[in-house]
Amino acid sequence: METALILIDGKWQKASGEATFHASNPATGETLPTPFPISEWRDCDLALSAAALAADEMRRLEPEQIAAFLDTYASNLEAASQVIVTAANEETGLAVSPRLKDNELPRTVLQLRLAASEVREESWKRPTLDLERNIRSCFGPIGPVVVFGPNNFPLAFNGISGGDFVSAIAAGNPVIAKAHPLHPNTSRLLAEEARKAVAETRMPSGTVQMIYHISNENGLRLVSDPRVGAIAFTGSRAAGLNLKRAADSAGKPIYLEMSSINPVIFLPGALAEEEDRLTRDLADSCLAAAGQQCTSPNLFFLWQGPKAESLLTNLANIFDQRNPQPLFSLAGQHHLQSGVTSLIDAGAQLVTGGHPVEGPGYRYAHTVLRVTSRQFLNKPDELEREVFGNATMAVTLDDTEELITILELLEGNLTGSIYSAKSGVDDDLYKRIEPLLRHKVGRLLNDKMPTGVAVSPAMQHGGPFPATSHPGFTAVGIPGSITRFAMLQCYDGVREDRLPSVLRNTLQNPNTWRSINGAWIRG
Amino acid sequence: METALILIDGKWQKASGEATFHASNPATGETLPTPFPISEWRDCDLALSAAALAADEMRRLEPEQIAAFLDTYASNLEAASQVIVTAANEETGLAVSPRLKDNELPRTVLQLRLAASEVREESWKRPTLDLERNIRSCFGPIGPVVVFGPNNFPLAFNGISGGDFVSAIAAGNPVIAKAHPLHPNTSRLLAEEARKAVAETRMPSGTVQMIYHISNENGLRLVSDPRVGAIAFTGSRAAGLNLKRAADSAGKPIYLEMSSINPVIFLPGALAEEEDRLTRDLADSCLAAAGQQCTSPNLFFLWQGPKAESLLTNLANIFDQRNPQPLFSLAGQHHLQSGVTSLIDAGAQLVTGGHPVEGPGYRYAHTVLRVTSRQFLNKPDELEREVFGNATMAVTLDDTEELITILELLEGNLTGSIYSAKSGVDDDLYKRIEPLLRHKVGRLLNDKMPTGVAVSPAMQHGGPFPATSHPGFTAVGIPGSITRFAMLQCYDGVREDRLPSVLRNTLQNPNTWRSINGAWIRG
Repeated sequence: METALILIDGKWQKASGEATFHASNPATGETLPTPFPISEWRDCDLALSAAALAADEMRRLEPEQIAAFLDTYASNLEAASQVIVTAANEETGLAVSPRLKDNELPRTVLQLRLAASEVREESWKRPTLDLERNIRSCFGPIGPVVVFGPNNFPLAFNGISGGDFVSAIAAGNPVIAKAHPLHPNTSRLLAEEARKAVAETRMPSGTVQMIYHISNENGLRLVSDPRVGAIAFTGSRAAGLNLKRAADSAGKPIYLEMSSINPVIFLPGALAEEEDRLTRDLADSCLAAAGQQCTSPNLFFLWQGPKAESLLTNLANIFDQRNPQPLFSLAGQHHLQSGVTSLIDAGAQLVTGGHPVEGPGYRYAHTVLRVTSRQFLNKPDELEREVFGNATMAVTLDDTEELITILELLEGNLTGSIYSAKSGVDDDLYKRIEPLLRHKVGRLLNDKMPTGVAVSPAMQHGGPFPATSHPGFTAVGIPGSITRFAMLQCYDGVREDRLPSVLRNTLQNPNTWRSINGAWIRG
Repeated sequence: METALILIDGKWQKASGEATFHASNPATGETLPTPFPISEWRDCDLALSAAALAADEMRRLEPEQIAAFLDTYASNLEAASQVIVTAANEETGLAVSPRLKDNELPRTVLQLRLAASEVREESWKRPTLDLERNIRSCFGPIGPVVVFGPNNFPLAFNGISGGDFVSAIAAGNPVIAKAHPLHPNTSRLLAEEARKAVAETRMPSGTVQMIYHISNENGLRLVSDPRVGAIAFTGSRAAGLNLKRAADSAGKPIYLEMSSINPVIFLPGALAEEEDRLTRDLADSCLAAAGQQCTSPNLFFLWQGPKAESLLTNLANIFDQRNPQPLFSLAGQHHLQSGVTSLIDAGAQLVTGGHPVEGPGYRYAHTVLRVTSRQFLNKPDELEREVFGNATMAVTLDDTEELITILELLEGNLTGSIYSAKSGVDDDLYKRIEPLLRHKVGRLLNDKMPTGVAVSPAMQHGGPFPATSHPGFTAVGIPGSITRFAMLQCYDGVREDRLPSVLRNTLQNPNTWRSINGAWIRG
């Protein structure tokens, strides 16, 4: 079978070098037939040069053309949805329905359309006019963006179609996507729809490009290349920190979404009121997509006592009753096993699961662990680690003081949740705990599980290091996610007819929100 | 004479260790009498612990209290202005009037008051409400901020009183200031006014702290300490990049303002129309504060020919006629000499100056150099270097293509200026050049010199690396500069009475701008 082609400068081309890899079907363990290329540096170099040219051209485009590209791509995805979700299912083991067909593909399309709408509106540029001094500023594109997509959302976070891609394009930048090697065929199909949309809307040929796989060394070289404007990465902490070191030393902004254990705190009153519902909600959240989500709750807190014991028993029962879904890879299965083993070595006790499941594909028994707060405080670093997959761990608390100490030790996380009683009996406890959790997490949830990240302008899918690399930015939510890929451009004393249209005294676009002499005004 | 005390946790204390240093008077070269301490790690450690406590307390404060602190500090500075500007003049050689008394101190006071007003208004928090989904977000404090002030603005950019200080406090963070060792007594006097304001407004005792000097090693340890939220640094590229490496590897956001050569392009029509005025404007901009400004034009471009020769002759005449003002230090004088020598070694020709000036203090002859565009393109790296002080270099252009090639090679800068004819004869040239310059600079100026950075909400005092570490942020301008020291905090499903007041359905503060379901609404 012929090796798949890479997308460079608008054309599907043969990759340099001969090395290849194959994806596999996680539900069966079978190796899939198509060989995909591992690119050598020459492919990166070609992509970077084409992207640099495209960046220059894109700076001169009207917003409408970029918006039309995003909309066309969205429609192309809808038209090709059947073949795309079939491929994604084959490569990831995620269910066609509802997950891929009814949730993730529509979300991907929605993100493209929301971005198109924002590009047309131009409010994301945050035009700011100081008319008295004739100083004006707005956001403009930062330059070519390299996007490394994760394994766990083959469509909505794919480097060639997901949130980072959409944000980078909306800001006016070309994208070089590094597809995740676990779903190359899905990425190829997506990239073909993107390529067609580029041609259909006469965008520069280097607007979207894709390679499948590169060596670690070439990855570091790619993110520190002078032609790069910024980088987005979603994946493991180890890989993220390596890329960060290279990008940082070259002075390139890099946005990382790495690891998060997403603590959930059940206050005693909440558990007394609604133990059954909370147990079910927790199980649903932990086991969605076999726990392979960035906001999956890896750690939850219970005040010790009969209610805690009962929740753990019931949770274990639910876990035991549900069939384990495939993990994305054999390596993922091994990682999960070694993570669970490390937790046990650090003192955690197995409640249920804790072993791979025989049978087709890569599966692991749904796993619940438990430690006491005292045990946790003995080895916080070992016990506060992300275990990616369908495992979670309870911490049973001797008292509130121990929770407070644990929260003070907690690393940065994407989310933190507090469940509290409707009756008000938890209110004082909530007030004590909330400020400690608040500044350790990007998104604070109340009476709500963290999985499910709405595409809302108020979303913060981000958080303090090491969850991400900067707590001021979000990877989800438009327009917030767009400004990550923008530079702030000030015009000082520039003649009116030489200003970008959003900064002129008379605005042509009636929908743009601008800050004029301190007041927000539309149109 | 007794060694000066450091400000830790609200009290003037003896520094650990015995090492000291002295400032000197740059106008006379005399060593000033007061010994100032070089702090050991213990002082940093005490400051960090106090700052961490203060950060927790400040998160619970009402905005009014922080605003009152900023206003009180501003008034204290006005009351103490005489003694402060006298000390600053003695340590920096900058003129008492108009520079320190009439410009820089009022600007410092203005920055504090503008920040106080923004803290009261709360619009800087950018409250964003998605009412349908009950997802809401706003900016909140990032944690203790370490501010390294530069040598060149002893008041308006001082770590204990300047733009970064003000922004960090306004975002609700305590500040640990690392004073610049060239003006320790000025910093001490400022810190005393800050300390009094902390006491007068009952702010946490660790709100503002200051040390004078630390080893490089302790500087790296300080910026990577887990108790730190973010870092701001203004100074040399070498020092900035060292701190950046340490902060980056600890995952701490660091905002650097490093080097910039601030190119100025004189289009031929502009020079034909107004040669005399442009020559004077250029001289004024280059020689302000002996050229020791971050936006001082180090490089300017002229189309070769009689007009270029005449401008260079006249510029040299003006430079020769004006008396050199003191440089901040003997080291600065040496750096300037070695910078000029390097430019000459790389092919630049001396038009005037190029040597230290005898007499009291640290002075250098006002210096003009010149190279041809071809010479520049032979050694762009050597010739594109910041020479901090009263020296500037002309590049005479054979043709427009060479300017375009040079602009493509240019590193990131804070500013770039284009002078163009009123008649319109330069319009086509402007259109060709502007896009190339635009994405290399934070602030693009038209018919205007880059020195003088207005405190405007539309200002961008920042730019692409290596001018700064991130092109999306500004160090000057409120509210933009505040959000550097903030984290984005989302509240998902949180009950109304548990939300910060700016995110509740009914807003108490009638002045806050909020984005509600996509529309900006005040109050």
